This record gives sequence, C-alpha cells and structure tokens, in this order.
Amino acid sequence: MRIGVLTAGGDCPGLNAVIRSVVHRAMTGHGDEVIGFEDGFKGLLDGHFRPLDLNAVSGILARGGTILGSARLERNRLREAAESASELARQYGIDVLIPIGGEGTLTAARMLSDAGMPVVGVPKTIDNDISSTDRTFGFDTAVGVATEAMDRLKTTAESHQRVMVVEVMGRHAGWIALESGMAGGAHGICLPERPFEVDDLVKMVEERFARGKKFAVICVAEGAHPAEGSMEYAKGEIDQFGHERFQGIGTQLAVELERRLGKEARPVILGHVQRGGTPTAYDRVLATRFGWHAVEAAHRGDFGRMTALRGTHIEMVPLAEAVTQLKRVPADRMREAESVF
Amino acid sequence: MRIGVLTAGGDCPGLNAVIRSVVHRAMTGHGDEVIGFEDGFKGLLDGHFRPLDLNAVSGILARGGTILGSARLERNRLREAAESASELARQYGIDVLIPIGGEGTLTAARMLSDAGMPVVGVPKTIDNDISSTDRTFGFDTAVGVATEAMDRLKTTAESHQRVMVVEVMGRHAGWIALESGMAGGAHGICLPERPFEVDDLVKMVEERFARGKKFAVICVAEGAHPAEGSMEYAKGEIDQFGHERFQGIGTQLAVELERRLGKEARPVILGHVQRGGTPTAYDRVLATRFGWHAVEAAHRGDFGRMTALRGTHIEMVPLAEAVTQLKRVPADRMREAESVF
Amino acid sequence: MRIGVLTAGGDCPGLNAVIRSVVHRAMTGHGDEVIGFEDGFKGLLDGHFRPLDLNAVSGILARGGTILGSARLERNRLREAAESASELARQYGIDVLIPIGGEGTLTAARMLSDAGMPVVGVPKTIDNDISSTDRTFGFDTAVGVATEAMDRLKTTAESHQRVMVVEVMGRHAGWIALESGMAGGAHGICLPERPFEVDDLVKMVEERFARGKKFAVICVAEGAHPAEGSMEYAKGEIDQFGHERFQGIGTQLAVELERRLGKEARPVILGHVQRGGTPTAYDRVLATRFGWHAVEAAHRGDFGRMTALRGTHIEMVPLAEAVTQLKRVPADRMREAESVF
Amino acid sequence: MRIGVLTAGGDCPGLNAVIRSVVHRAMTGHGDEVIGFEDGFKGLLDGHFRPLDLNAVSGILARGGTILGSARLERNRLREAAESASELARQYGIDVLIPIGGEGTLTAARMLSDAGMPVVGVPKTIDNDISSTDRTFGFDTAVGVATEAMDRLKTTAESHQRVMVVEVMGRHAGWIALESGMAGGAHGICLPERPFEVDDLVKMVEERFARGKKFAVICVAEGAHPAEGSMEYAKGEIDQFGHERFQGIGTQLAVELERRLGKEARPVILGHVQRGGTPTAYDRVLATRFGWHAVEAAHRGDFGRMTALRGTHIEMVPLAEAVTQLKRVPADRMREAESVF
Repeated sequence: MRIGVLTAGGDCPGLNAVIRSVVHRAMTGHGDEVIGFEDGFKGLLDGHFRPLDLNAVSGILARGGTILGSARLERNRLREAAESASELARQYGIDVLIPIGGEGTLTAARMLSDAGMPVVGVPKTIDNDISSTDRTFGFDTAVGVATEAMDRLKTTAESHQRVMVVEVMGRHAGWIALESGMAGGAHGICLPERPFEVDDLVKMVEERFARGKKFAVICVAEGAHPAEGSMEYAKGEIDQFGHERFQGIGTQLAVELERRLGKEARPVILGHVQRGGTPTAYDRVLATRFGWHAVEAAHRGDFGRMTALRGTHIEMVPLAEAVTQLKRVPADRMREAESVF
Repeated sequence: MRIGVLTAGGDCPGLNAVIRSVVHRAMTGHGDEVIGFEDGFKGLLDGHFRPLDLNAVSGILARGGTILGSARLERNRLREAAESASELARQYGIDVLIPIGGEGTLTAARMLSDAGMPVVGVPKTIDNDISSTDRTFGFDTAVGVATEAMDRLKTTAESHQRVMVVEVMGRHAGWIALESGMAGGAHGICLPERPFEVDDLVKMVEERFARGKKFAVICVAEGAHPAEGSMEYAKGEIDQFGHERFQGIGTQLAVELERRLGKEARPVILGHVQRGGTPTAYDRVLATRFGWHAVEAAHRGDFGRMTALRGTHIEMVPLAEAVTQLKRVPADRMREAESVF
Repeated sequence: MRIGVLTAGGDCPGLNAVIRSVVHRAMTGHGDEVIGFEDGFKGLLDGHFRPLDLNAVSGILARGGTILGSARLERNRLREAAESASELARQYGIDVLIPIGGEGTLTAARMLSDAGMPVVGVPKTIDNDISSTDRTFGFDTAVGVATEAMDRLKTTAESHQRVMVVEVMGRHAGWIALESGMAGGAHGICLPERPFEVDDLVKMVEERFARGKKFAVICVAEGAHPAEGSMEYAKGEIDQFGHERFQGIGTQLAVELERRLGKEARPVILGHVQRGGTPTAYDRVLATRFGWHAVEAAHRGDFGRMTALRGTHIEMVPLAEAVTQLKRVPADRMREAESVF
Repeated sequence: MRIGVLTAGGDCPGLNAVIRSVVHRAMTGHGDEVIGFEDGFKGLLDGHFRPLDLNAVSGILARGGTILGSARLERNRLREAAESASELARQYGIDVLIPIGGEGTLTAARMLSDAGMPVVGVPKTIDNDISSTDRTFGFDTAVGVATEAMDRLKTTAESHQRVMVVEVMGRHAGWIALESGMAGGAHGICLPERPFEVDDLVKMVEERFARGKKFAVICVAEGAHPAEGSMEYAKGEIDQFGHERFQGIGTQLAVELERRLGKEARPVILGHVQRGGTPTAYDRVLATRFGWHAVEAAHRGDFGRMTALRGTHIEMVPLAEAVTQLKRVPADRMREAESVF
C-alpha cells in the first residue's frame, strides 16, 4: 500500500507523534510506503511531497509543530482538489490519504472522500471541540500550559491583592477555559457557550475580599462575551494603523473589573504558547494510537471515516458525523466547575 | 448532612483535590458539614478527626500528598471497623463516609457498606488498575513524571551508546510502563501481564545498533518478570543486614543485558518521585469531578457505590463490581505500543 | 535580638525563601525573635505585624509570592517613616529591620538607615538591574519562564512560517530579554539600552526566509523602543474607556513587521506569569543565602548595607552604592547574543 | 581559520549549546571553517570528523546530549595523541582544537597543548567541581532535576510519615547535594567533603517527629560516606553475577536509618536523569557564552587556556591551573545550608 499523509490547520502538539506512528505502523507492520505532503492540502495540489521512512520520523515524538508544515488553503482551491480527487490519488499513486486536521480539514477530507479519494481522517484540535471523539490530542497540552500559568499568577494576585483575568484559547467552545480554570483553581470561568454577567464576577470578587481572600483569578475563553447590556464591549476593533487591534475580551474585562471594583485588575493573554512545544504524555499516547488505528483502518478499507477516542478504545466514526456539529461544553460540566469557585 | 472523608493507601497526586471538591460541593452546594478522619481508617477507629471547612481546603488543589494523612491498617482492625460500622457512623454523627483509596480501601469500604454504613467510594491508584473506571487520578501524573525522565535519559543513552533500563511503578498491572513507554519513545516495554523474553530485547538492541541507532531505552514495570528460563532472576532477596534488598527487576535486567550484549547498560529506578508532588491538570480535573459526584451520590442516597469515569461522564458503579478484578493491560494495547518500538 | 522583616514592591519568586531563611538563622542560630510587617512599609507605619517562628515559615520555600504581602506606599508616607525611624524601631522593640525589595525599597531603606534605624537590606528584582550584586533572586525564574515560552512558540512559528514577537519584562534594563532571548534561541533581541532599527529586524527575517528558515522569533523587553524615525510608535496611549491601553511595544512591533514583511507576525505578551509561582532552584539557593547573611550582618552590627552576590560569595555593600545607578546590559553582552541570531 | 571541536566525558546538558555557539561565532563572526570530531578524542585519533555549518547546529540549543557523541579513551591512547599532537593538527589542517570536557578532558587538553597543539578548552561538568570557574554548565540543570524530585518526594514522605533518602550525583564534590538539598528543603545533607555521623541524622529525625513534623528528607551525594564507626558500610560490593552491585550509599543509609529509627525509610536514587535532557536557561546562556569566548580566544592566539566564569564575566584561565585541584564545597557553604535544616 502507498499512503499519503498531510497536516493542515493550526499548530497542535502531537501532530508529529501521529506522523511517526503512521510511518512505523505502515512500514514495519504492513510493509507499506508512506509519502508526506508539505504544507497541508497545498502540497497535495502543488505536488510538494517527500517520502517518509523510519529515519525521517526518528526523534520527532516529543517535538511540537509538524515536520510536514501546515498552511491555510482558500476554499476554491480546496474545491479544485475535491474535483480532481481520484485523479490526484492516481497521480501520486496513493491508495489512501490520511489528513490530520481540525474541523476545516475534516470537512475538506469529507469532500475528497465523497469525490472518490480513499481517505482516513485523524482529528486534531487543541480546542477539543470535535464531536464524536471524547478527546483530541493537543488539548491536554494546552490545558497544562494554561494551568501552569494560573498556578504562577495566583501568587502574584495574592501578594498584591489583585484580580487577574487570564484569557485562554477557545473561540467557539470553552473546553480549555473549563478544564484549565478547574485545574488552576480559577474563581470564575467565562465560556463562549454562555454569555457572562459582569455583575456576577464583581459580586464574586467582592465576596472573596469580604471573606479575607484578597485576590481572584478569572479564566476567560477568547470567544467568551458579556451578556447583552452587561458591559461595553468592542469586538474586532481597528487600530490607528488600520490593523485589527489585538485587544480581546480578557483585556476589556480586566479594564471593566478595575473600573467597577476599584481594585487592580490585570489581563494576561496566554496566546500561542498554548499550542506549541512538546506534547504531554497524554497527547503523545493518544496521537500515537490515532496513527496506528488510521493505518489499520486503511488496510481494512474503512474509508470516509476518522479515528475517535471512545472511553478507552479507539473507534472509527464517519467523517460526516464528526463535522456536523461542534462539541460544546454542556451545562452540567459547568456546574461541576462552579462548585469549587 | 454530615459527611466523613478519609484517604487511605499510598500517596497519589489528586487526593487533596478530591477533599477540596467534596468540602466545596457539600458546604456551598448543600450546606453540609464535613469532617476529615486522620491517617485513613485508623482515624475512624481511633476517633482522630477534624472539621473541614473552606479555609481548611484553601490552597490545596495543586498540592501533592493528602492533608488528612494516610496509613496502612492491619486486616483484623479493619474487620473490627466493619463489625462496628453502624455504631461508628452513629458515634461520629456522619450520614455518609467517603473513603478515597485503592483496591484495599475500596474492599474495606465495601465491608463497611455491607455492614450497614452509608458509603460512597472514590477510587484512587496511580497504577490505573481498578476495573469499572476508564482512568484514576494520579495515573496521569505518574506517567508524566516517567515520560519526562525517559526524555532526559535518551540523550545520555544516545551520547554514550548505552542501553538504559527504566523501572517504573506497577506491581500487578503495567499501565504506567505502557503509557510512559509509548510517550517516552521506549524501544521495549516489559509488563507484569506478560513475561518477557530477554532474547527478544537483546535482538531488538542489536538490530538497532546494526541500523546505526546506537542506543536503546527499555521501560520495565516493577512487577514485570522474565519468562521462565529466560534469565537468572532473584525475587525479593535478603541483604546482609537482614533487610530485603532494594534491587528490582530493572537492575537485574540491566546487568543481564550488559552481560549478553557486551554494551553498557544502566538501570534507572524512578521510585517514589512518580507518586508525589503536584498533580497534572488532568488529574486535578478528574479528582475534582470525582469529589463533586461523590457528594451528589451521597445526597441521592446512592450508597455502596463509587465514582467512575466512563468516556467523558462520571458514573456510579457498585463497589462490589469495582474490586473483584484488577484491570490489566490487554493484548491489543500492547500491540499498539510495539508498533513504534 | 529582635528582628523585623518586610517585603515591598512587586512579586518576585524567592521572597518566601528569604523570609524562611531569616527566621531559621535568627531563631536556631542566635536565639532571636522575628516579627514580620504586613504589606511592606505600610505594616511598619500602621503597626500591622505578626511574630514569625519556624512553624510560620514551614513549607514556604518553594512557594511564590510573599506570606507577608506587599503594597506600594506613597512617597510622603515613606518620608514620614524616615522621620520617625528611630521612634518606630523603639516602638516595635526591633534591633534591626530587614527590608527585602527593589530599587524603591532599598532607597527607602537607606532613608530609614540615614535617619537612625538599624537596617540590613536584601535586594530583590526579577529585572536583575540592581548594581553591586551579580544577580538577584527571581531573575532566574523569570528567564526560565520566558525561555520555556519561546521553546513552545518556535514550533508554531516554524509550522506556520510566522514571525513571533515575544514581549518580556524589563522596563529600564534588558536582562530578561537578553538571557531568555539567548536561551530561547531568539533571532533578534530588543533592549531598553539601545533603540532598535526596524529595518535591521526586517532584513534579518528576510535573510532567514531566503536561507530556507521560514520563521523567526524576536524577543523584546517591554521597555525597548524603536530608534527615532524607525517606525510609528505610540507610548502609553489611552483607550476609549479612558484607561491606558495594554498595548505595548511587542504588539506594535508585530503589527509593523507584518506590514513591512507581508508575512504573518504575532505578538505574545508574557506578562505576569514571569514574576509569580515557584522559584527555580537557583533562586531558592540565592534567596536562602541572602537571608542567612542578612542575619549575620545584623549580628555584626553591619548596618546600612545590603547583601550582594559577588562571584560565588555573598558580601555586604553599602545601600548608598546599590541604588545610585541601574545595572544595564553592557554592549559586550549584547555582542555575545547577536552572534547566535 | 579552521577550528576543530570535540566533546568528551559524560553527558552534560549544554554541550550542544557550546558547539552551536562555536560554529555561529566562528562562521558568521570570522568566516572560519569548523569541523567536529566524533566520539571525543577517539574521533581525533581515528580520523572521524565532519564539517559543521549553521545547518548542522540548527535546532540543537535546547537539546541534551551531544551531536558529536562522546566516548572514553584509554590513557595510553591519549598519550599517543599527545605525542603526535602537532602532526594531528597539521593532518586535519586545524589551527586550533576546542575540546569541551571535564577534568580528564582538560588534562588531556593540557597534554596536547604542551605537546604543541593550539588548544582552547571549555570546561564541562555537572558536578561543578572544576576550580577557576565559578560555575560550569550542566550543574544548574542537574540541581533543578534533583530539586524537583525532592519537591515531589516531600509530599509522599509527609503523607506516610517517612524518611526519604535521596541520592544525587557527586562522587568527589558535593555541590549538587548542597544546592539541591538547600533548594529542595532537605533536612540533612551528606557530602563527600565531610564524613557524616548517622547519629546526627537519627537525632535530627527524632527531633522533627517530636516537634510534630513527622517526615524528613535527607539528600546524599553518591560520594558521601559515613564517619568511621558510624555505620556498617560496604563500598563497591560484587553481586552474584560478578558485577558490581548498584547499591550505593543512599540505599545503605536508608536501611540503616529504618533499623535505628524504627520508622519507614526509603531510598531514591536519581541517577542518570540528572545529566540528560534539555538544559535550563542558565546553562544554555553560560554554554553559549563559553563557546563565543573560546572562538575569540582562538583568534587572539590565547592558547593553552580555558573559558571560565568569574562573577559576571567570562575570562580565560590556564589549563594547568584549572585541573590541579578539585573545587570542593567549603565549610562556610555547608554552614549556610545547615541553618535551614
């Protein structure tokens, strides 16, 4: 068998672990050949690829990023790919394509699959918002980085009797904010799933100070937003250079809390440190398992599906099912978190 | 409601997170009272306990160990406890006991429950070998520590063309060895579940050296043992002071490999560093959720059961079911790991 | 002897290690009594203090922040303190005051000393910009946090062919930027000590891309600024809510580089995570030694001086000397760093 | 200029950072050529070397180990090298050799230098025991690893009322034990510099338990040994396979303490994890500076010397001076540490 593999979308710890696992299982388990397309679907369309053997993937398990590169592709070029899917497969002589990516990538994968290319997907997102899999690799690393940051920030908050507002990733789903907020012992968590009331946060902080706990940490997903009328809030404003301002909800909320509370509030925007660097052990194991099962699925001819974690097992689920709906934080998970504020 | 909580058995990162979560949920969610027994069942029998309020559990989320202490108790004293279970409950005025512990603790919990004490268990083991729950807290931390050690050891092994034998915890089940071995990129993994052939390891190392990869890391669970006739192997020998020697399978295997290979082999025994210290974000979240659900179960009168992770949900399972059988590493999980050796 | 201790100024990993060391050395080495003033000089003026014994400092060595709290004090209240210095000492019955703090604190300490209070200072700043000491505790931790962030950011930069601009602390001196930039393998470092030319950075990035290294990381001290005419640059602008914008040089430089390069550039503002949390081993050792020597100096009657690291020794230097001049990054240190861009 | 570089002796975090720095400074600063000899002096004698350019050293700053490999060489082969030193230099066309290594390597370097080869040494030892330099790279990483282990072990010790004996590296000098013991808050430190009295340790533990602190951590250098008559002690015993037993002072001391105290005592042997893996920021900076200054010294013709940290400066010191005497922990450093037991 000849297998093509590519990584698309944002950086995510564990991508290299998947690539390595695919190559190992394919070559030593089945005697397959593997090629890697560079910079995601772009490499597939432009014919940029290279053979991947055991040496090519040696030493990459613990490395962040992706040795294959990743790039965004315009929608119409993706459509172009879909239209020539079976031709592309023939051209490269690949029997299956294993794209590793997030919602956009899996949607593209589904288009290619529908258009006749044998595809086995591997889901990837640090946001953990893909339905049909319990978890995605990269998420654990992101939560770990955010938690360690909150561990550090607490001592400063406490020493200076301050409110720290920590903005973490999560544009459409609040999983990182939920879990890092719980693990970091945040006293408030704001998710995209539920507009927050600034009044509630103000009240929580005031009650803490009244109880003698003279600091607070609030964990905010970048996609969280205030309930209507709750505070002045500017989304995506443009600065004096004509660029979008890098001033998200975290900064705006800190400004608002300082104004209302009359206490120092400081924003900390964690940003890209959450998505790079060496993956946690959890993410390395999950990514390695996904790679193994993707190859096995390919050999069973189980196309049009992607790997998914269900409990302790890896199962294959239809791509169609995976991308129809975002996995959001349900109300009962939020209730668990609120209990320890 | 008045809730008693205790921690028993070995140290495990996340114990404090459970205690904190129990206290928060009980007090702020239900207006309960909570008392903590000291040093496990010993405190229950000897009447050593203290009230736990929000201040008592402040700042302990990220701390390893247990603020309540833990001690082993002889079997006959446990039987004594079981016999006077309902009396003990009355004596302390507790409506429910929440013991947090491993197999032994949960067995004791079941005895108490059978004898009439309302009990809700919380499973705990860094070994991850309790059936009926997908994972236990503490395990992720242990795997993380072992993985980081292997990351470090690899560079030494490579620079010096050596074989490193890393002994990790796991007396009866090999989960830590399996997952840290996969995550740390070990080239051989030895589990208690399957006697290993030294010949296989020798062959693997020789093939690696032949391919130009002049080093190897082998991850061995402390409970692993060689296949009969595979190597001389002394279990539990006694030293000159009349004490059991602290020389486990890791050291013996390193000695044997050096002899057969004619190459330097070195044992590294990770030991107790795996079970102490600050828990990972994963373990803090799981422990916090277990605490929340234990309190909810208590309020539902859902006694004689323990919290369990099933997929992404926390469910209650009968204590009886939990402790009848050890969860061992199945053959297919080992196959996944072998693929990337 | 009766010793008063206080911590003033910004949070800094290692403060608790000094306090612990002072208490241990004073009590067990000399049979002294120690009291701790709360919230810096405020506690001294307002009479907020508490006795510190071995139990009070148990378990704080590895904890960030300061158990005594810290607060800023207005200049005129400080003058008030200086005027009543000897009276204050008498009032609390202290034979010596050990203030632990940065430039402002040491200046205040000098005023108190000049006014007749026996004072032994301990220098503290994560910025490492106090003359007369080779290093200050807290600095190593800050550099470590910033370096780990750059390690993580590199994989994202590389996978996405991006320029990452990392803003680190350092308003007046660029030590954190210099050392974390060197340790994190930054390709450009901008310090307050030397206005930077945007053209140089643009050229560096373009040359890297031309060589096939399609990413770059630039490390910028928050106090760095462009050479005149080098780019549009707004210092301390005010946003629509009347607050100062939290948009520093890092963000502005990223915007400018993206504009000129036509490549994605992203700012990452590390902020307060650099100054909180558990200190590195280096900082714990240095802080512990400072505490020990401060007590010894007090017993020798060596007042009006502060502890300082000189090579491998701790020496006492006059407070006057310590605060007259900021320690800036000299040109030859910058040359060493430039070599590996 | 044509520069030869090699790494010899044990693995040490920061070796790659030196190599990278040498190559960068030599090539971009001076237009030099650099070749790297493989496996230490062995490569020099056997003619195994490869050219090193910017690509060859790309991405190695944060990697442990050494890309050039390292191997021990018998004394008589070293003498052979010394005898043909100038011939070797001519043969490879190198104008200078930069050997990076510990005491043995620097002694060999001195022999080569005396025999006419232009040599600039770079000192390397995780033990920090080379005179004439304040610190060596690798040491900070080793101390950090040992400190983190002690942080973890304390919670287990405390939860189980145990004595933990942590054996760290340091055969002839106790720097790692001293600094990790201080940073990890050990309650006893045993160094090679001073035979320890078991009675003192027993008394310390008993006093702690009497004060209600029911645990203790003792940090022991592998080269520490008991005072005569203090305990039975077997050095370098041979096991049943004819190999030296891997049972060092840490294990023996734990056995002895358990016997005398009647309390659980457990040994933890950190071993090779201390010397591998990614270097701390401190070590990366120091290693990078050493590389820079070695190249500058070569261009100044400053041969027969090695780089050394003196305060905040890098200076060149004669190789002769560097290797005559081991740098041991002086009594006053030990006194500082004892204060906080």
